[in-house]
Amino acid sequence: MISNMKESGRVYLDYAAATPLSEAAFLAMEPYLRSSFGNPSAVHAEGVTARSAVENARTEVATAIQVRPEYVTFTGGGTEGNNLAIFGLVESLKRQGRDYSEMEVITTKIEHPSVLVAFERLKGMGVGVKYAAVNEYGKVQLPELKALLSEKTVLFSVAYANSEIGTVQSLHAIKKVLKQSEEQFSSEIYFHVDAAQAPLWLSCQFDTVGADLLVLDFAKCNGPKGTGALVRSRRVPITATVYGGGQESGLRPGTENVAGFVGAAVAFAAAQSDWRERSDTVSVVRDQGIRLLQTEIPELFLNGAQGEDRLANNINISVPGLDTEFTAVVLDSKGFAVSTKSACAGAGGGASIVVKVTTGDSKRALSTLRFSLAPDTTVENLTQLTQILKQHRQKMSAF
Amino acid sequence: MISNMKESGRVYLDYAAATPLSEAAFLAMEPYLRSSFGNPSAVHAEGVTARSAVENARTEVATAIQVRPEYVTFTGGGTEGNNLAIFGLVESLKRQGRDYSEMEVITTKIEHPSVLVAFERLKGMGVGVKYAAVNEYGKVQLPELKALLSEKTVLFSVAYANSEIGTVQSLHAIKKVLKQSEEQFSSEIYFHVDAAQAPLWLSCQFDTVGADLLVLDFAKCNGPKGTGALVRSRRVPITATVYGGGQESGLRPGTENVAGFVGAAVAFAAAQSDWRERSDTVSVVRDQGIRLLQTEIPELFLNGAQGEDRLANNINISVPGLDTEFTAVVLDSKGFAVSTKSACAGAGGGASIVVKVTTGDSKRALSTLRFSLAPDTTVENLTQLTQILKQHRQKMSAF
Repeated sequence: MISNMKESGRVYLDYAAATPLSEAAFLAMEPYLRSSFGNPSAVHAEGVTARSAVENARTEVATAIQVRPEYVTFTGGGTEGNNLAIFGLVESLKRQGRDYSEMEVITTKIEHPSVLVAFERLKGMGVGVKYAAVNEYGKVQLPELKALLSEKTVLFSVAYANSEIGTVQSLHAIKKVLKQSEEQFSSEIYFHVDAAQAPLWLSCQFDTVGADLLVLDFAKCNGPKGTGALVRSRRVPITATVYGGGQESGLRPGTENVAGFVGAAVAFAAAQSDWRERSDTVSVVRDQGIRLLQTEIPELFLNGAQGEDRLANNINISVPGLDTEFTAVVLDSKGFAVSTKSACAGAGGGASIVVKVTTGDSKRALSTLRFSLAPDTTVENLTQLTQILKQHRQKMSAF
Repeated sequence: MISNMKESGRVYLDYAAATPLSEAAFLAMEPYLRSSFGNPSAVHAEGVTARSAVENARTEVATAIQVRPEYVTFTGGGTEGNNLAIFGLVESLKRQGRDYSEMEVITTKIEHPSVLVAFERLKGMGVGVKYAAVNEYGKVQLPELKALLSEKTVLFSVAYANSEIGTVQSLHAIKKVLKQSEEQFSSEIYFHVDAAQAPLWLSCQFDTVGADLLVLDFAKCNGPKGTGALVRSRRVPITATVYGGGQESGLRPGTENVAGFVGAAVAFAAAQSDWRERSDTVSVVRDQGIRLLQTEIPELFLNGAQGEDRLANNINISVPGLDTEFTAVVLDSKGFAVSTKSACAGAGGGASIVVKVTTGDSKRALSTLRFSLAPDTTVENLTQLTQILKQHRQKMSAF
């Protein structure tokens, strides 16, 4: 990493919100920022160079997850990707003659705002919207999901790993349920997986994930901000939701962010090439951190699942009664960058919807702290953090 | 400019398609690419630094065109901006209770695909779509525009300067026509101006432009690709068209492209600070170039307007009978980067819609060449270009 966290004395524990651009990604981008500036749609040498860079980047992303390059569409990030996946599918089906009222879509109530708010919009358009139950750890409940599926169902949408509590869904088991219903209803139920939090810690191999629509946000895996991709299966119908030129096979018009996509591909390939080692290393630190926290602050609750059902770098706790927004500010002043919930859920106060839904406990939902570890976070970092948090907790209790 | 066109021996005449990132913009971006990588929505120091960078960039853009920062929404480019302007307005009116069938929108047939295709989509949704006539130079015909306006009209959309033939619209006169009709019908007719081609060559002062929705693409004025903005008036109703977090005042969700917006603001402020000098200098080169071309290749046609009605850096000609797609390739091999039409209109063959609409002449539409000059293009560059083009023309005629 370029960012010298250690030199600065800062301990950055908000990797779920933003990651530093890798040195390799920056170096790959630099020529396209500083000299090769052509428009990839132009026929001249400058255009050809730019086109070649974009297509090489596409191939690099595709190769990393074993999919054909033509099924990779670059976007401006995860939010845009989720919107394109959801509305691109529904609009495509609409154009095939299926009314909104003849479609049902299913998600959970613990998804990222870019999915939750998109589903609210679908509801406003007349599409049937249902929510699959999750258990207290945030795992989709398969029997309940199965019961919701009908001949009208066209889409099930879920995050690979939840951005707040880090719960990793059992995609293979979900896919199986969807497939059974497809056979039962002789229908097509498309599977959308928001994999924004996944690339550094989980395999995003397209066949392993089993998605029809896989959304990536490269800023979450050491790529540049403002870059993402939608990877789709051969069978999924999809149409553009922004209108303009024919770029990205007509699915995402506008001049390509050449440097951004080049850096994104380098970062993503690196993230995927050694996700398992990284995950194995960091999950040990995570688990020691969790144990430390539980030992030193016994009244806290761990939100989310354990072991393999938990993202390797995620710790999410609730300390009922503690003003955790203020606590985050105090920790920041002591050199620890942490968050209370997802950055896209807003920096302001308010409860964590994810924790409210999974635990049903408002006090827990109002007192969350998320520590999302970096690949180089150490047990020492978390020991210090725990001590400061414990002292702060005691100080606050004294009032 | 960073790009050493002169050292490379290349003459880049496709400034309308892509511009090099300015050195100042790159240097401003570098810290946000290499070290300050926080998520602007986070409360900790890294987040605050990023938030501050985004808001300073917004203020820099706003100051350059004399508008309040809260009316500047950053986007991923001009295409996204035009889509947000058009659908954001129409959807907002819809939510206020106005049916699509009770709305009419007007544009011209020579707009960029991001406007033309968006209007086709509106038509599919049931919105009334009309096209204002343009004359042979591409100027909107005011009496014809006036005749189209009705009590149903909610939007008139036009490019400040056409991306192919460089025609600069008389925005003030158009605004006057719109205002008269607003008074006549006691209605609100919003004015959307696609200013993608403008910042280096024309004033984008918000009051001068007179738009309710002004769309910028910073990649066209020495900023990074994948960045743009929608600047709006106080009165215009608008809603997000992509769904997610509350970023950009809820109008454009997704983690902000911090480095991109920082570079964009630096480039845009520089573009606007000396647009007049730049324009004055380049328009002299342009006019000498046009005269040279007309003298040496008398059978060519100049497409578009002359003098102040023409973008300072635009030359667009037709050479009927000449395969200009091939000519562009030949010129490229001789060191000249030129295009036949707008990059977003596709690199492939096919006639220029803009020239077909303005001239009604298919042969002219099939044989366009666009030379969009850089600030440092010289008369010598255009003299060489003219000679090569003349020789190529003679060679082709020999067959």
